[in-house]
Amino acid sequence: METEKPDLDVIQEAARRIAPYARRTPVLTCSALNGLCNAEIYFKCENFQKVGAFKFRGAANAVFSLTDSNARSGVATHSSGNHAAALALAARLRGIPAHIVMPNNAPLVKQDAVAGYGAQITFCEPTLQAREETLARIVADTGSGIVHPYDDNRVIAGQGTCALELCERIPNLDAVLAPVGGGGLLAGTAISVTELCPGTRVFGAEPSNADDAARSLRAGHIIPSDNPRTIADGLLTSLGERNFPIIRERVADILTVSETEIIDAMRLIWERMKIVIEPSAAVPLAALRAHRDEIPGQRIGIILSGGNVDLDRLPWMDRNTHAS
Amino acid sequence: METEKPDLDVIQEAARRIAPYARRTPVLTCSALNGLCNAEIYFKCENFQKVGAFKFRGAANAVFSLTDSNARSGVATHSSGNHAAALALAARLRGIPAHIVMPNNAPLVKQDAVAGYGAQITFCEPTLQAREETLARIVADTGSGIVHPYDDNRVIAGQGTCALELCERIPNLDAVLAPVGGGGLLAGTAISVTELCPGTRVFGAEPSNADDAARSLRAGHIIPSDNPRTIADGLLTSLGERNFPIIRERVADILTVSETEIIDAMRLIWERMKIVIEPSAAVPLAALRAHRDEIPGQRIGIILSGGNVDLDRLPWMDRNTHAS
Repeated sequence: METEKPDLDVIQEAARRIAPYARRTPVLTCSALNGLCNAEIYFKCENFQKVGAFKFRGAANAVFSLTDSNARSGVATHSSGNHAAALALAARLRGIPAHIVMPNNAPLVKQDAVAGYGAQITFCEPTLQAREETLARIVADTGSGIVHPYDDNRVIAGQGTCALELCERIPNLDAVLAPVGGGGLLAGTAISVTELCPGTRVFGAEPSNADDAARSLRAGHIIPSDNPRTIADGLLTSLGERNFPIIRERVADILTVSETEIIDAMRLIWERMKIVIEPSAAVPLAALRAHRDEIPGQRIGIILSGGNVDLDRLPWMDRNTHAS
Repeated sequence: METEKPDLDVIQEAARRIAPYARRTPVLTCSALNGLCNAEIYFKCENFQKVGAFKFRGAANAVFSLTDSNARSGVATHSSGNHAAALALAARLRGIPAHIVMPNNAPLVKQDAVAGYGAQITFCEPTLQAREETLARIVADTGSGIVHPYDDNRVIAGQGTCALELCERIPNLDAVLAPVGGGGLLAGTAISVTELCPGTRVFGAEPSNADDAARSLRAGHIIPSDNPRTIADGLLTSLGERNFPIIRERVADILTVSETEIIDAMRLIWERMKIVIEPSAAVPLAALRAHRDEIPGQRIGIILSGGNVDLDRLPWMDRNTHAS
């Protein structure tokens, strides 16, 4: 069953649907970072979203747009990251089962988070094939509906509600930057921004070490990422089939940054803004710093995508020696 | 020249005075922490204050209450912490000199912060005697006015503006908890809360390893701290002469917590609220968790005093082994 292709109406409907459940996250500014970047930056803080990431928006929109009879059988996905926790919480809020397939090497803290929201976890070998086979078996057994982490129109529409709030709150932005992995957030952002504010340009931001979106945009077709390695662990996936055409149509460019630039930007945000963000969320600020001359205007919106990070393994720890 | 003893009027005047310069910081809530603590907690986030700590309020009130002729000669203090940065910024905003005496072993990052605000730094040996002698010499040379970090009526009134905002924003709190070092924040908080909301009780929170305030309250006179060692580096000082009588009159109790309890509370706030706070700021939440049965009611205000922390040396690092 294909769902409605997302446009501004669909995103606005998603916003009304998830309003009772999702947080309307704050927009923060920081004069020190404005000075450093020669810009007026508006940070949309999805690290303060439920489950600590924008992913809750898409998951909640998918779960709450199910008919009652479809919802009864529950939802299912394979994920070891923020989408798993987001779908688990959304399902619990609707009172339906969530079946999450996780690789058996997923960090304990992520297993605990998903289990804490009451989801049924099924472990499998840590290969894509094992994950997909396990998920297919669960869906066959339970009749639950798959909610893909990004290649799903309901998810794209849900993620688009974030930029909707940003544009409503801060009009006349010159540009909006969002990180791009599978493209759910960037596609949803691009629809909201280009429809609501036709003068505002949208940029994706991506690690150079996982630059499949930049290469896909140049090539004009999806080029899957090839075993990427980056500190930005939320951006490892390749662009989805539903995401790519939206991005191709509406995104001005995809800007890439080095691992060092990501870590520096992450640390700047922690130090100057006193907020906790995950490495993936630092990629747009890194892109603004590295590509300032390619981004027009002064008023820049940045989506800080999430704040789930292992406090025992911060990326700058490896670069420093610690006296005790 | 003695300044006006702080009462509610004086604090409200301070609030008007610093309004153009200080941030009206947000009040955050966190359902996960509410559940863990069996309380409805309202966190007043002074980690988002200018210079990253409540100290800016007191410094700004002191600087902007000077007459023009007194202001011309500038202000002076000895401090290696948040007060130094706060006074430096307040002086820069008024366009007057700030003379800061720092021990020559002060961390480079703190020297840079103070220098970055344009203050004149004078280094001295890291002893209290050297600091006081150096400060006295500078004051004699420049005619600048000393702004003590806490034992100063203008500073106490300035710090009281934080709880004023909290009580205006969240009425009918059952209790308010603030950390106590020299007592500037706790004294100002106690005046604001007990005058505005007579039904609300005020508690100080202190490391067991630096429990001079708890012992002073019990003894009925100031007992100086004796070379305390605690991770909460903002709470090492002893109670001031002006602070103690206010605290004695208006504070219900001083609650003490272990180093482990402080570190656990700090990490909880980072993980669950996605904000960066310094160890001293975690002491009230630690006290709420350790002394829940001594604190009446459900609606608890907590002042998160600041967010200046060395990201290379987080307190939980010493307790964990890191795989790389």
